[in-house]
Amino acid sequence: MNFEVRKEHKQFGGKVVFASHHSKETKTKMNFSFFTPAKPAKNAIIWLSGLTCTDENFITKAGAQEFLKDTETMIICPDTSPRELELTNEHENYDFGSGAGFYINATTEGYKDHYNMYGYIKNEIVKILNEEFKVDKISIMGHSMGGHGALVLGLRENFASVSAFSPIVNPVNCSWGQKAFAGYLGEDKSLWKEYDTCELILSGKKAQSALYVDQGTSDEFLEKELLTKNLEEACQAKNHALTLNMREGYDHSYYFISTFIEDHIKFHLDHLSK
Amino acid sequence: MNFEVRKEHKQFGGKVVFASHHSKETKTKMNFSFFTPAKPAKNAIIWLSGLTCTDENFITKAGAQEFLKDTETMIICPDTSPRELELTNEHENYDFGSGAGFYINATTEGYKDHYNMYGYIKNEIVKILNEEFKVDKISIMGHSMGGHGALVLGLRENFASVSAFSPIVNPVNCSWGQKAFAGYLGEDKSLWKEYDTCELILSGKKAQSALYVDQGTSDEFLEKELLTKNLEEACQAKNHALTLNMREGYDHSYYFISTFIEDHIKFHLDHLSK
Repeated sequence: MNFEVRKEHKQFGGKVVFASHHSKETKTKMNFSFFTPAKPAKNAIIWLSGLTCTDENFITKAGAQEFLKDTETMIICPDTSPRELELTNEHENYDFGSGAGFYINATTEGYKDHYNMYGYIKNEIVKILNEEFKVDKISIMGHSMGGHGALVLGLRENFASVSAFSPIVNPVNCSWGQKAFAGYLGEDKSLWKEYDTCELILSGKKAQSALYVDQGTSDEFLEKELLTKNLEEACQAKNHALTLNMREGYDHSYYFISTFIEDHIKFHLDHLSK
Repeated sequence: MNFEVRKEHKQFGGKVVFASHHSKETKTKMNFSFFTPAKPAKNAIIWLSGLTCTDENFITKAGAQEFLKDTETMIICPDTSPRELELTNEHENYDFGSGAGFYINATTEGYKDHYNMYGYIKNEIVKILNEEFKVDKISIMGHSMGGHGALVLGLRENFASVSAFSPIVNPVNCSWGQKAFAGYLGEDKSLWKEYDTCELILSGKKAQSALYVDQGTSDEFLEKELLTKNLEEACQAKNHALTLNMREGYDHSYYFISTFIEDHIKFHLDHLSK
């Protein structure tokens, strides 16, 4: 295998593996975790995590493996940024730099050499799935910043289906997005639009599936950062299929994700089996 | 309610709550978490965690709530020791002092004033369940050090059913147990036996259910600390009902627990509904 196994645990008859490899896109070691069920995987789901997360959060807390154990679909969970660098301002804030790669290819000084998480997912994670695991089809999903990443990658690249929990859908219009995009992409706002779900939909991009989205109504970031209404409006304007489940009383946490992960896994399994 | 809510998250139609209260047994603030399903709870399961754990590990990682969501059974997860004290040697080691209460009532100087986790579970956690939540029956389960606690409490007190993952079954004969019992109970080994599952069974104690135990064969602590064979022998010697599932290739982690938690929950639900 073209990666190093750091830890491995049997679970649900399959295994959870924590691995590392050298990335050409980030020019650093990168960490990822994956779950493979007992039967060899024919297909895969990529999970993209949110701010502050690593390759561990989803695989330990979401409960997805329960719903993959009897399938031929694996799941892979990349870390949210390069690690072990010392770039300017890289470690000062939870919402920029380490743990906050935002799934873009950076163009600003220093960051452009390493913060290429868009290319990392699109090229290197997909390559691992295709070449090391020999999977056929790939779907993509994520949470918050990772929901943003999943939607953008799902709209721009070839993934069988795309879903998100509590995604940042319009980063050019929220403070998390503006801060990150200014830091990674500079002031050229035409570039920002290439990584903005609403802008991509309005420009005519289409994902290969409906966008399947769960959003808690008690999410503390809903009004200021997530801007879910803008996604509804963009999808309506361009007639992009959207399944938006507003979930009464749920917040931004993994307790929310674990409650509805079964539905998301089934959504992807449906598309992967077509 | 006779406790303070620190955090609350909706999950599976019910809620996960992190709470604190003042304990008379430990003379400190104590933390616990619980999950209550959508319907009011009629019964409860107590979960006791292992070394280094807090009230968070189980409720975030084990996946039990999935199997309680449609029931009338709640689960409560106490912390593994008092916190915020500064006793001699309390914070030097992962296997003694904070995070390692071992579910005993201490008799040694300093510890006897606070490390009374046996009484805390038996009296105060049970009282919260009875008085605040008005539950009828209570079962008990745990992992590793918490598996030891569940088996000892299940053998000595009135719990509807008892189960354990990877329990320390014979602490008087393993280094974890010997270190903890010497520190908490001193050199009077007759006292140690009151907190030793094998010794309690050999002395004729009976739990109200079969002892339901899952143990991974690749558990790194199996041979030196857990001594599962001694449990089998004690149960055989005294004809105590035991269901021991040796699980090929599983280790000591929550990946193991999550794989078999559904079976344990069903076991307890069966007994609680009788």
